[in-house]
Amino acid sequence: MVVVMEMTSSVQQIEAVNTMLDRLGFQTQLIRGVKRIVIGAVGDRPVSDLQDLQLMPGVEKIVPIMKPYKLVSRECKGDNTTIQVGAVTVGGADLTIIAGPCAVESRPQLLTSAHQVRQAGAQIIRGGAFKPRTSPYSFQGLEEEGLKILKEASQTTGLPVVTEVIDEASLQMALDYVDMVQVGARNMQNFRLLKAVGQTDKPVLLKRGMSATVEEWLMAAEYIMSEGNSRVILCERGIRTFETATRNTLDLSAVPLVKRLSHLPILVDPSHGTGDRGLVLPMSMAAIAAGADGLILEMHPEPAKALSDGPQSLTPPELEQLMQQLSLIAAAVGRNLAGTSIPHEVA
Amino acid sequence: MVVVMEMTSSVQQIEAVNTMLDRLGFQTQLIRGVKRIVIGAVGDRPVSDLQDLQLMPGVEKIVPIMKPYKLVSRECKGDNTTIQVGAVTVGGADLTIIAGPCAVESRPQLLTSAHQVRQAGAQIIRGGAFKPRTSPYSFQGLEEEGLKILKEASQTTGLPVVTEVIDEASLQMALDYVDMVQVGARNMQNFRLLKAVGQTDKPVLLKRGMSATVEEWLMAAEYIMSEGNSRVILCERGIRTFETATRNTLDLSAVPLVKRLSHLPILVDPSHGTGDRGLVLPMSMAAIAAGADGLILEMHPEPAKALSDGPQSLTPPELEQLMQQLSLIAAAVGRNLAGTSIPHEVA
Amino acid sequence: MVVVMEMTSSVQQIEAVNTMLDRLGFQTQLIRGVKRIVIGAVGDRPVSDLQDLQLMPGVEKIVPIMKPYKLVSRECKGDNTTIQVGAVTVGGADLTIIAGPCAVESRPQLLTSAHQVRQAGAQIIRGGAFKPRTSPYSFQGLEEEGLKILKEASQTTGLPVVTEVIDEASLQMALDYVDMVQVGARNMQNFRLLKAVGQTDKPVLLKRGMSATVEEWLMAAEYIMSEGNSRVILCERGIRTFETATRNTLDLSAVPLVKRLSHLPILVDPSHGTGDRGLVLPMSMAAIAAGADGLILEMHPEPAKALSDGPQSLTPPELEQLMQQLSLIAAAVGRNLAGTSIPHEVA
Amino acid sequence: MVVVMEMTSSVQQIEAVNTMLDRLGFQTQLIRGVKRIVIGAVGDRPVSDLQDLQLMPGVEKIVPIMKPYKLVSRECKGDNTTIQVGAVTVGGADLTIIAGPCAVESRPQLLTSAHQVRQAGAQIIRGGAFKPRTSPYSFQGLEEEGLKILKEASQTTGLPVVTEVIDEASLQMALDYVDMVQVGARNMQNFRLLKAVGQTDKPVLLKRGMSATVEEWLMAAEYIMSEGNSRVILCERGIRTFETATRNTLDLSAVPLVKRLSHLPILVDPSHGTGDRGLVLPMSMAAIAAGADGLILEMHPEPAKALSDGPQSLTPPELEQLMQQLSLIAAAVGRNLAGTSIPHEVA
Repeated sequence: MVVVMEMTSSVQQIEAVNTMLDRLGFQTQLIRGVKRIVIGAVGDRPVSDLQDLQLMPGVEKIVPIMKPYKLVSRECKGDNTTIQVGAVTVGGADLTIIAGPCAVESRPQLLTSAHQVRQAGAQIIRGGAFKPRTSPYSFQGLEEEGLKILKEASQTTGLPVVTEVIDEASLQMALDYVDMVQVGARNMQNFRLLKAVGQTDKPVLLKRGMSATVEEWLMAAEYIMSEGNSRVILCERGIRTFETATRNTLDLSAVPLVKRLSHLPILVDPSHGTGDRGLVLPMSMAAIAAGADGLILEMHPEPAKALSDGPQSLTPPELEQLMQQLSLIAAAVGRNLAGTSIPHEVA
Repeated sequence: MVVVMEMTSSVQQIEAVNTMLDRLGFQTQLIRGVKRIVIGAVGDRPVSDLQDLQLMPGVEKIVPIMKPYKLVSRECKGDNTTIQVGAVTVGGADLTIIAGPCAVESRPQLLTSAHQVRQAGAQIIRGGAFKPRTSPYSFQGLEEEGLKILKEASQTTGLPVVTEVIDEASLQMALDYVDMVQVGARNMQNFRLLKAVGQTDKPVLLKRGMSATVEEWLMAAEYIMSEGNSRVILCERGIRTFETATRNTLDLSAVPLVKRLSHLPILVDPSHGTGDRGLVLPMSMAAIAAGADGLILEMHPEPAKALSDGPQSLTPPELEQLMQQLSLIAAAVGRNLAGTSIPHEVA
Repeated sequence: MVVVMEMTSSVQQIEAVNTMLDRLGFQTQLIRGVKRIVIGAVGDRPVSDLQDLQLMPGVEKIVPIMKPYKLVSRECKGDNTTIQVGAVTVGGADLTIIAGPCAVESRPQLLTSAHQVRQAGAQIIRGGAFKPRTSPYSFQGLEEEGLKILKEASQTTGLPVVTEVIDEASLQMALDYVDMVQVGARNMQNFRLLKAVGQTDKPVLLKRGMSATVEEWLMAAEYIMSEGNSRVILCERGIRTFETATRNTLDLSAVPLVKRLSHLPILVDPSHGTGDRGLVLPMSMAAIAAGADGLILEMHPEPAKALSDGPQSLTPPELEQLMQQLSLIAAAVGRNLAGTSIPHEVA
Repeated sequence: MVVVMEMTSSVQQIEAVNTMLDRLGFQTQLIRGVKRIVIGAVGDRPVSDLQDLQLMPGVEKIVPIMKPYKLVSRECKGDNTTIQVGAVTVGGADLTIIAGPCAVESRPQLLTSAHQVRQAGAQIIRGGAFKPRTSPYSFQGLEEEGLKILKEASQTTGLPVVTEVIDEASLQMALDYVDMVQVGARNMQNFRLLKAVGQTDKPVLLKRGMSATVEEWLMAAEYIMSEGNSRVILCERGIRTFETATRNTLDLSAVPLVKRLSHLPILVDPSHGTGDRGLVLPMSMAAIAAGADGLILEMHPEPAKALSDGPQSLTPPELEQLMQQLSLIAAAVGRNLAGTSIPHEVA
């Protein structure tokens, strides 16, 4: 950490800061500049403990040097982490494509979707049983009934399933039915939920909050890992900016940036990221080209009848076409798209 | 709602949209322009049910006309709502000043703070027992022990207390100890929590999410009200923008805008809104001048020792000075600042 | 400046950075931490010269310590600057209210406006002769004819006038007719224009760019001052954020922040800042309460007939009402609003 | 256009709006809803002329239906536009790679760069002679001397050159030396400059402003085209958001979106878009996968000695590697990368 003193700070003030740093266990060193005195402080205290320094007389600002996260960092673990979700390995040479409807609406809708997802060559099925909706008057999900349908879809197709959890109760319920739980963008800083999923051993798909910096997102992953669950998969899903022509602004630069800062796998959600079915294909291609480990896509047997997020859902033929085009991009970046070899259905 | 058809849409496509609108219970009317055909649709369905229209062939876009919220709207209730928090009326001619430390750190720290808050003339005491912190390694709050201290502070000073709740468990626990619960910015779209507080009869201080539009914020209030609890007080606390010189960008325009759109009271939090002790006084003045019904302020007996948010906390003398200057602004906008008459302490 | 080395940097890399810093004229000092080596570097080179350091092997990041602006800074000049615009002093105890239509549309429109502005008690008249419009098909201003009308309005009312300039040609033309030139938000980083106004001795009203940080805005002022013209008045007019309920997000925290960082006067434009006539009054009050030295307001004799920015223009009676309410706020913050004593008209 | 009347609007108010619309040349149609009356208005007036309607008593809001741009729109011209820059065709099946240093620093630096650019297989050389720099104390460009060096580089390598112009004087000067002029992000709404380049017949590379919506960007192109120059190439270069981990947020969704809305070619600038050399390769790949017609890249013979933008400049070997990897992505999306066949040097 570096403490920048004000141009007008007195010898006593500098002394006082030094003493305080000493008390906090830092080794200090004074750097006398032309217009500023700067105090370098060496130690290992979390940044959050140091803000009181900022209030000491004569202090202009505190500049932290260390990153606030540890377990998630590439410094802590140099090689890429792969995470097992059922029989699927996320983060290795094979790309992972997760697809399915935004919400589980009915047994026939989800089972049909699941077969279409498998037919298209995707590896994991998605479907929401608990829906965080902006309006209290919108469809909120089938809850446990939805989880049962997801489990049936998994058993019928042989593919693992993922679903969003929105509090501890829904998490506890979901643990019995699904292979991976998702923490949604709106809950990325629901720290209670992060701790709760951190106390399970389920893989966690952690979406970036819509106004979260990459650092805050990695801190959210640190919350989960600090509780003991290291099976975290990150998911970029667009951030909120001034641009309203798309639902969100998909921040693909975050993909190579996260790869540099962390060892965790990262997926991209171009469906929520754009909110526009016509942009899902090109942005899926771009995401893989940028180095993402896979995608999570919305597909609905009949988007026009979807109870939520219809406008951004692909049709089954569109998903198949996307998978084909994706295989070309995958090859260009040295990744595999397993989808070509469809395993036999589990009776 | 208005459906804008693409320039190239066919007669059949227009017919199909018309039929669908009819089925959804809308009365429709065709408007033929030079380059576009537009279909006006009259009805009362929530916007969320209509997005499938956007997927019909030939449809360019859907333009909603109605606001998505009802109970919170000024159209629904023309006169200002006042809300009782203990003996304090929020939203009337008297301004409401809530003050206290960010976190309850110890019994002496909070009791000292509480007396200083009362001494300065503020009406409600704040203090966090459950702290949502960005880092898992930071202080997370005293939990139930903190709630007990808050209750004691309330009994000793005669002032009501407010504290943040972060999930259903903390809410249930808090109900016995405090006079108002706060839903923080990070939980503004934690819809489970919104429903849970909506099922109590406690006053709720609902902070705006850091990337929430005013409309989304009012929808969050609608969630609470739609469950039966109409005692909602809104609180502007800054939004996230590209500007990093302040911790957040305090959006004071939201104050008169919310007053136009809704009948609910609105407070402002200049401490989190700026993250900078030196800006709290001028922005407090500005908030009241803009029409806010009051403020929520961080004050700490010794900010340099605060376990969280020290840099934005006022000292007790600063709070007293603020109250004095505020009384001049209050008078200029026709509001009262009750602080001058301090009630006798409850033994 | 502080150079943070990567955890894995070698002795040779550290040596190389040290040598380079030495060559650039810095004195250096090594700080050895537990996980990082940090090099403190003392000197006076502009930040922009140092980015090559960031490319040296082993360097993680560069942390600048010094602010990049000098002449505009409070460190450079401790007391507030006041600027003379005709007979009006901006930045002193008296508030400065600038009012008038967005655009000069015709001689009668502007002369009527000018008298209404004077009648209401404002001190300076505004009116655009060169209009930067988003659409090439919109009204672009009366240009020199407009300037002549502005000069006539000034002579008739005895009030100084300000108008926006948009390139060197319009600047040269305006110098003969107006008392102050305005550099608009879209031109805040038109560095050629900044230099050109810096080479005149006219007062300059420098609006903040809609996505400019406070630091970039002060750097734009530095451009003007570095050319020799120190008569710069800053003007906050709202920044672009995700919120679309208002045209811009008026960043009032920038007012006390600029007062801390710089000695220059600062005005606020609540008309563009909100884009909403109904919000102009409360945000004007808030701006003065936050410490602004004055306001620039849009007023039109008949807003419904305005050729630009009608929805945010006040009517003459609204301006008068605003001036009255403002005088109460002015008193509350120890400022004067001169408007009460209207000087006799110049024949 | 659709005019939404307030719930409480009177028959007289509705009548008055109808009369006004009639006078403005619109055909109107009344839509009576349960809670709102909406007036559909058919006509062809620019949106900017209609804002006065918003001020009429009883009007809640105006909803424009038509897009504000014409000449740039895909509706106006269905097939993709290709633009000739010297012997290079931009916007066809062949991708266009523009590369070179941020600034022309010296004759040897640029000529070396130019040969390296050609060697790597790029088609157009870039280099700044007029540099818009945030600080007045930074290097501002070699101006006409730089233009002469650019022309020499073009003649020696046989490749066309592009340079940024920043006002009418620099534009007039550049016309004799370069094959394409660039309007930079900071000047995207410098309407005088847009008109001036619109009055030439040079190809124009129009960068998106850092806080410009896609619609505003297309309006800037409309400015150029409305003056008669239809040779406009768009360039996405990142927008400003709350995220500070990258210099800007590269908005790749804008690529397929622009392709839908407009017939003009679009390039991507991953160097400015990320500000981080390590992210340029993956984001270049992503840009082409998303459908961009090419890239503009910063390359410097010795980035550590660059006078501007060093940290985001590729080295010559990095550019060569990028071109090779890019050719794989190009093939995957059905585009050609001409770079493999290098034409013989012009003596």
